[in-house]
Amino acid sequence: MTPTPLTGAVTAPLYGDPEATALLSEAAVAAHMVSFEVALARATEAVGLTETGSADAIAKALDGFAPDLVGLGQGTASAGVPVPALVAQLRKACGPEGQALHWGATSQDVVDTATVMALRDVLGLFAARLPALIAALKQASEDQAETVMAGRTRSQIATPITLGLRAANWAAPLISLTEELPSLREKLCRVQFGGAAGNNLAVAPHGDEIARQIAEMLGLFHDNVWHSDRNAVVLLGAWCARVAAALAKMASDLVVMGRSEAAEGKAGKGGGSSTMPQKANPVGAEAIVTLAAYINGLNPLLVTAASPLEERDGAKWALEWFALPQILIATAAALRHGQELATSLQAFPDNMARMLEANGGAVMSEAASFALAAHMPRADAQGLVKDALKIVNTRGGTLADALAEIGPKGIDWAAALDPKRAIAPSQMQAAAIFARAAPLIETSSSEEDE
Amino acid sequence: MTPTPLTGAVTAPLYGDPEATALLSEAAVAAHMVSFEVALARATEAVGLTETGSADAIAKALDGFAPDLVGLGQGTASAGVPVPALVAQLRKACGPEGQALHWGATSQDVVDTATVMALRDVLGLFAARLPALIAALKQASEDQAETVMAGRTRSQIATPITLGLRAANWAAPLISLTEELPSLREKLCRVQFGGAAGNNLAVAPHGDEIARQIAEMLGLFHDNVWHSDRNAVVLLGAWCARVAAALAKMASDLVVMGRSEAAEGKAGKGGGSSTMPQKANPVGAEAIVTLAAYINGLNPLLVTAASPLEERDGAKWALEWFALPQILIATAAALRHGQELATSLQAFPDNMARMLEANGGAVMSEAASFALAAHMPRADAQGLVKDALKIVNTRGGTLADALAEIGPKGIDWAAALDPKRAIAPSQMQAAAIFARAAPLIETSSSEEDE
Amino acid sequence: MTPTPLTGAVTAPLYGDPEATALLSEAAVAAHMVSFEVALARATEAVGLTETGSADAIAKALDGFAPDLVGLGQGTASAGVPVPALVAQLRKACGPEGQALHWGATSQDVVDTATVMALRDVLGLFAARLPALIAALKQASEDQAETVMAGRTRSQIATPITLGLRAANWAAPLISLTEELPSLREKLCRVQFGGAAGNNLAVAPHGDEIARQIAEMLGLFHDNVWHSDRNAVVLLGAWCARVAAALAKMASDLVVMGRSEAAEGKAGKGGGSSTMPQKANPVGAEAIVTLAAYINGLNPLLVTAASPLEERDGAKWALEWFALPQILIATAAALRHGQELATSLQAFPDNMARMLEANGGAVMSEAASFALAAHMPRADAQGLVKDALKIVNTRGGTLADALAEIGPKGIDWAAALDPKRAIAPSQMQAAAIFARAAPLIETSSSEEDE
Amino acid sequence: MTPTPLTGAVTAPLYGDPEATALLSEAAVAAHMVSFEVALARATEAVGLTETGSADAIAKALDGFAPDLVGLGQGTASAGVPVPALVAQLRKACGPEGQALHWGATSQDVVDTATVMALRDVLGLFAARLPALIAALKQASEDQAETVMAGRTRSQIATPITLGLRAANWAAPLISLTEELPSLREKLCRVQFGGAAGNNLAVAPHGDEIARQIAEMLGLFHDNVWHSDRNAVVLLGAWCARVAAALAKMASDLVVMGRSEAAEGKAGKGGGSSTMPQKANPVGAEAIVTLAAYINGLNPLLVTAASPLEERDGAKWALEWFALPQILIATAAALRHGQELATSLQAFPDNMARMLEANGGAVMSEAASFALAAHMPRADAQGLVKDALKIVNTRGGTLADALAEIGPKGIDWAAALDPKRAIAPSQMQAAAIFARAAPLIETSSSEEDE
Repeated sequence: MTPTPLTGAVTAPLYGDPEATALLSEAAVAAHMVSFEVALARATEAVGLTETGSADAIAKALDGFAPDLVGLGQGTASAGVPVPALVAQLRKACGPEGQALHWGATSQDVVDTATVMALRDVLGLFAARLPALIAALKQASEDQAETVMAGRTRSQIATPITLGLRAANWAAPLISLTEELPSLREKLCRVQFGGAAGNNLAVAPHGDEIARQIAEMLGLFHDNVWHSDRNAVVLLGAWCARVAAALAKMASDLVVMGRSEAAEGKAGKGGGSSTMPQKANPVGAEAIVTLAAYINGLNPLLVTAASPLEERDGAKWALEWFALPQILIATAAALRHGQELATSLQAFPDNMARMLEANGGAVMSEAASFALAAHMPRADAQGLVKDALKIVNTRGGTLADALAEIGPKGIDWAAALDPKRAIAPSQMQAAAIFARAAPLIETSSSEEDE
Repeated sequence: MTPTPLTGAVTAPLYGDPEATALLSEAAVAAHMVSFEVALARATEAVGLTETGSADAIAKALDGFAPDLVGLGQGTASAGVPVPALVAQLRKACGPEGQALHWGATSQDVVDTATVMALRDVLGLFAARLPALIAALKQASEDQAETVMAGRTRSQIATPITLGLRAANWAAPLISLTEELPSLREKLCRVQFGGAAGNNLAVAPHGDEIARQIAEMLGLFHDNVWHSDRNAVVLLGAWCARVAAALAKMASDLVVMGRSEAAEGKAGKGGGSSTMPQKANPVGAEAIVTLAAYINGLNPLLVTAASPLEERDGAKWALEWFALPQILIATAAALRHGQELATSLQAFPDNMARMLEANGGAVMSEAASFALAAHMPRADAQGLVKDALKIVNTRGGTLADALAEIGPKGIDWAAALDPKRAIAPSQMQAAAIFARAAPLIETSSSEEDE
Repeated sequence: MTPTPLTGAVTAPLYGDPEATALLSEAAVAAHMVSFEVALARATEAVGLTETGSADAIAKALDGFAPDLVGLGQGTASAGVPVPALVAQLRKACGPEGQALHWGATSQDVVDTATVMALRDVLGLFAARLPALIAALKQASEDQAETVMAGRTRSQIATPITLGLRAANWAAPLISLTEELPSLREKLCRVQFGGAAGNNLAVAPHGDEIARQIAEMLGLFHDNVWHSDRNAVVLLGAWCARVAAALAKMASDLVVMGRSEAAEGKAGKGGGSSTMPQKANPVGAEAIVTLAAYINGLNPLLVTAASPLEERDGAKWALEWFALPQILIATAAALRHGQELATSLQAFPDNMARMLEANGGAVMSEAASFALAAHMPRADAQGLVKDALKIVNTRGGTLADALAEIGPKGIDWAAALDPKRAIAPSQMQAAAIFARAAPLIETSSSEEDE
Repeated sequence: MTPTPLTGAVTAPLYGDPEATALLSEAAVAAHMVSFEVALARATEAVGLTETGSADAIAKALDGFAPDLVGLGQGTASAGVPVPALVAQLRKACGPEGQALHWGATSQDVVDTATVMALRDVLGLFAARLPALIAALKQASEDQAETVMAGRTRSQIATPITLGLRAANWAAPLISLTEELPSLREKLCRVQFGGAAGNNLAVAPHGDEIARQIAEMLGLFHDNVWHSDRNAVVLLGAWCARVAAALAKMASDLVVMGRSEAAEGKAGKGGGSSTMPQKANPVGAEAIVTLAAYINGLNPLLVTAASPLEERDGAKWALEWFALPQILIATAAALRHGQELATSLQAFPDNMARMLEANGGAVMSEAASFALAAHMPRADAQGLVKDALKIVNTRGGTLADALAEIGPKGIDWAAALDPKRAIAPSQMQAAAIFARAAPLIETSSSEEDE
């Protein structure tokens, strides 16, 4: 139990992600704030609002400047945002030329822009990890393309599938979510520059031009002022929740596959127990489930924040800071664990076979009813299969034997009830799923080469 | 207090929406289930799995067939889904040809496809209402383009804006959300046909072809089986939450504008009190705020549902039924109220003017500091304005007078501190916001003409 | 998919509860509102504010009066609450004496008091069902007191327990929650009477005395006005969430126990599949899990409602109507299913035995390490057990055999590793748990006799 | 934007609480773990399971021992909990006597017990802060007992109240919540000792006695094993949510009272703006609103955690660590801000008077209708008041003048419509609210004296 499982010394090695945490650190965001102020100084000079030469002086003075975070904290305690304290620090560092700083900007312009700069970097992290995970799942799916197992619906044995198809189904939502990344980046990573009440009154009529120039300098998109339009922030949170939900589905499946009584598969390194020598706990999979629930709990805060009062809202805006970095770090950590699970997936075919043979091979009951339906009405076929299952349960033996006994003659029950029949249609579906992934995976690999 | 505010006799007139409720009614969804079964019968016949002529017989027998909902309820109590009971009702209605019904389908295929048919209809409702609302806000924005008022940030008077810009800002997220509708429809309105464990084993290798044909007959999109990929369902829920949050922002602004002490504006019909003759409560705006919070509360259920266990999950799948129709009806009701508010927006300029003049016109403090910054360092300028505000607070008078007294000479304070200066930049921004709305509004109007 | 799974014709047989739904129906709550108005009329007459005889006339005129709900709905649409319309209906029914109606009351007085009258009735339902459920679990626990099974931690076989202890653990939180019921009732079921702004100005100084008399007439508690103190409402919601979470724990355990590969136990009637003849889905247990998640999703609405603005808040107050009845009906439905599961719990000892014997009886690894720790340092003991487990995994055989081979001599491994050793300590704990339940169960039985 | 607003350097000064953070730090909880292990060693020695003298040796070796947190983190990454790594560190520190450590305990015993020790300390903090806050509100209520202001319902002026009553209403839920503290402490602060699967099999039959002794040594309560009964944890979370909701009600009222157009009151130090010299933002009140929403978002995680699977659940248990410390620190921070607001509450009676006089004194409309109801039917009275309000709105003047003109003669309107009439009934209610607080405040003061 620590105040912050994502970053605590004891807990972060399991629940955190060092890369995402660094990208979202106070120091990183503060550095982005400085970059914003420098870019703003250049833009206001360019449109003629501030003195010629002031921007260069500012840029030089702030080159490598690291704000004093403790000082920003004191400022936040009184002003609710670190920006007045930051501007004071920057002015002090710049001397007289510092007068040209922060021209026409409001605190929210600085914080929002610095935040999306950090978000852009985290989206870059995701854009690298997701294709790698999809590629790993594709590999796992191909490796297990002929590994037949009992599919389960409502926690009961249903009909046969392959582990390869299941792995493809784990990948399916991740593929859609990766496809959405460029559009998400464009909607989210927009410069914020609206001034006190959002209409850039203090720099009129140059507001839009200044915003455009800052965006270009900082590598951001440019659109309207979004002080009170938090739409894209909610979209990001929901996107992360969907990524995490998809990973939690994989993780939950793995926990159940690895239960002692099934032992059909395993992924990740098993964790030891402080008192039971035999145990290998599914620590990584459980961590994903926990992280996904955490993300799901935080998301409503972002929706609440998306109804800010009037031009800018102090209480609702701050909710984003309580939800967004946590959601992103947790998503990054879940992806990290997901990758480890995907690349270490092991099947135990003997145990899978035991389930396919359980209750005389009852997993093929539906197949039996379809085979019989060629010879009799479907309801009669289902009734006959139920009778055969009763024989199996009473006397033992296989469903095939019982059906041979009580069903119409001339059906090749060994063939009709062979679970391997699930391989071909499963493979077809897995292929269809991964067909869409090809451009994502390729792009990613080639990007890595650069 | 009623079990279901969205549909109760006492509460639905305020919180419900008759159109959306009808589209999502049990009868409507049951009718879609019948349509699915008929289309499935045609498709299985087409690929040669069921007897020639059976589909026509089924279609004829089920023409106008309305399932017995009470019977479906009894079936749901025992099976967890209404489909086994529905199939029994349909078989009874069809006689011997009914054997060809439900060939290769599982309950989830029927329920999911019928559900997205209903969702498609509700999305159609939204696709009509959103452009109408945006158009109404555009009209309001243009009507109030020169209505200057004090912008508020952190619940305090900040700098001047126009009511026209505020109305444009209400519209901004709605425009983005309307733009997303076609993509949302394509991701969501997909036929579901995977059979027992999702690999269409019982109809292999015809699964994909059957799905394609059903999609075509029912006017749905076709992609992979999505039994365990609930990604698009979460996307829909998040989209609704964003629509509702945008409406709740407008509603909250209107509640605050209409407070007795501000009385700067009004929208909707005021509700009376049971004991206070003078009151006019902002009933419609409050209803939107309530509905948005309700939607936000339900959304995490959809995320939880997006991690179904194994091939199909009985407990998590059902969560969608507890969240989705409620979210949609509540969104529709919020849009209904939003339209009424947007078309009845009234400004009370006298009261707005009082706020612009309050504390000697302190709303123009930022403008004053920028005017002074041409003559002195910016920090000195801010200090001088604070001194002038102290004079105003002590002796009364205007900020302009005080600045004329203690500031540098030669500044035309009447012009510099005229709140009307906010009109031009506000208009520019409003125009930029509505520029993107043009294609949406036109499409909608021309559709209405058809 | 229906607008309201708790009350829809298709879904309510599974997810609803007819008793709770009736107690919370619009008609029931409206009748309570009439009772409140009659009691208020008596109280205002008693303190001399309204004319002598008016209360009797009102009571007579309203005897059996059923408000027109559709009319209340129209009134709600315009006023945000049904009370002005209700008062108009009542006045019309009473004629001139109706002037004495609603004296000094505000809408919230009427709605809140009528609501807690309905809540009191639902708490009565819970007060009957919970002891019955605890009694059923006690019976199950006693029946299974010697049914040894593998305990599971982190989804892995840990050490042996009894099914009797597990059933006792299901009951443990329910016992605490039943103990809390009287205190919850006292905090919640309080008359509301504060008048327009909560200080009973219109009837001063009789406010408190009127409230006291109404409380006595309606069988409610009386304390301060609670227009803006929604503390007890949140407490009720959290209580329901805890009841549902406790039931969901039992249900989840049962789903896992009943999985095909474990088949260690079963409860409830299994649901059939539309396509797989062999299936028996855990429909009741899944319904509990779904209902608990739904309740958990709604609870934050009550917390939001507990920060009403100023004297009375139209938007936040209404959130209670969107959450409270739904939470209560869902809790009632979960209790209904819980009772059915508890009374139908079946164990399959053969399958349990198979798990106890799995991997050579690895479930007794901890016991082995403790037996060895009498002969060597504990870490060495754990190491030796791990070595023995390796032998079992490689060569087969039992842990006892392997330990006899490689461990110190003279240990009676058959006795030390007998899972039946779990019976006594499990029984002791189950007895301790149910010791506290005795007064609850007895009270309940004797109440039923009356 | 920082990963953890509760503890970040930039954000903690506003959103954090140093005292609570210290009590819940990793170091503090790790120290509690060591205390647990020492107490366990004493207890197992006392019942004869471990060697005589081992406990003293362990206690001596671990006196002042501070676990290496980084090492615990590495252990957590692989085992999912820090306990195996901690036990290894402790054994190393103790040498051979360390064999007697952790006898019969499981990781959850250690973590849960250490956690409730930290929770107990935080509850102690709350038990000091809440009475201080209630006392401050009592003082404020008494100071403002005759400060008449317009009560607001549904954001509209309703009838007059006093600021003293409003302050009492802020205190009302806090008084109930403080009363609940001892019962909460007793339910929550219980030793955890159940061993691997919760039945203390490894130490049978001494489990209960060992637990009793540990509880005594650590100053905790003792009851049954609660591995899978997380009832009290949810109760704590809900209690915090109710505290925070009560504080957020006060904070929201203060934000609205302090809006520029009302300016009826103020509390806390106003925060400055980076660009607008005139602003004084309600930073403390906004922070409370944000913190309360955050707590509300985290609470459902605790409910989810309260349905652990089987004997112990790795994924759900960990959810508590993601919610509980954050909820507690945020509650502590909200109390800190609440205290500052309560002790700095200022009223601006002139502005309050302006609202009482607005629209000719319409705030007394209800009073007017009651005064008239002595002369005519109530509906006629309300109609007459509405007519008088119309006159006021058209011609100006006061409601009293208009009623004198069109109403029955002989009513002393100046007296009947004097807002000061609200003082007496408001005072009566405030007194009733604080009557219950007396024992809480006294206890607290005398404790402080010690």
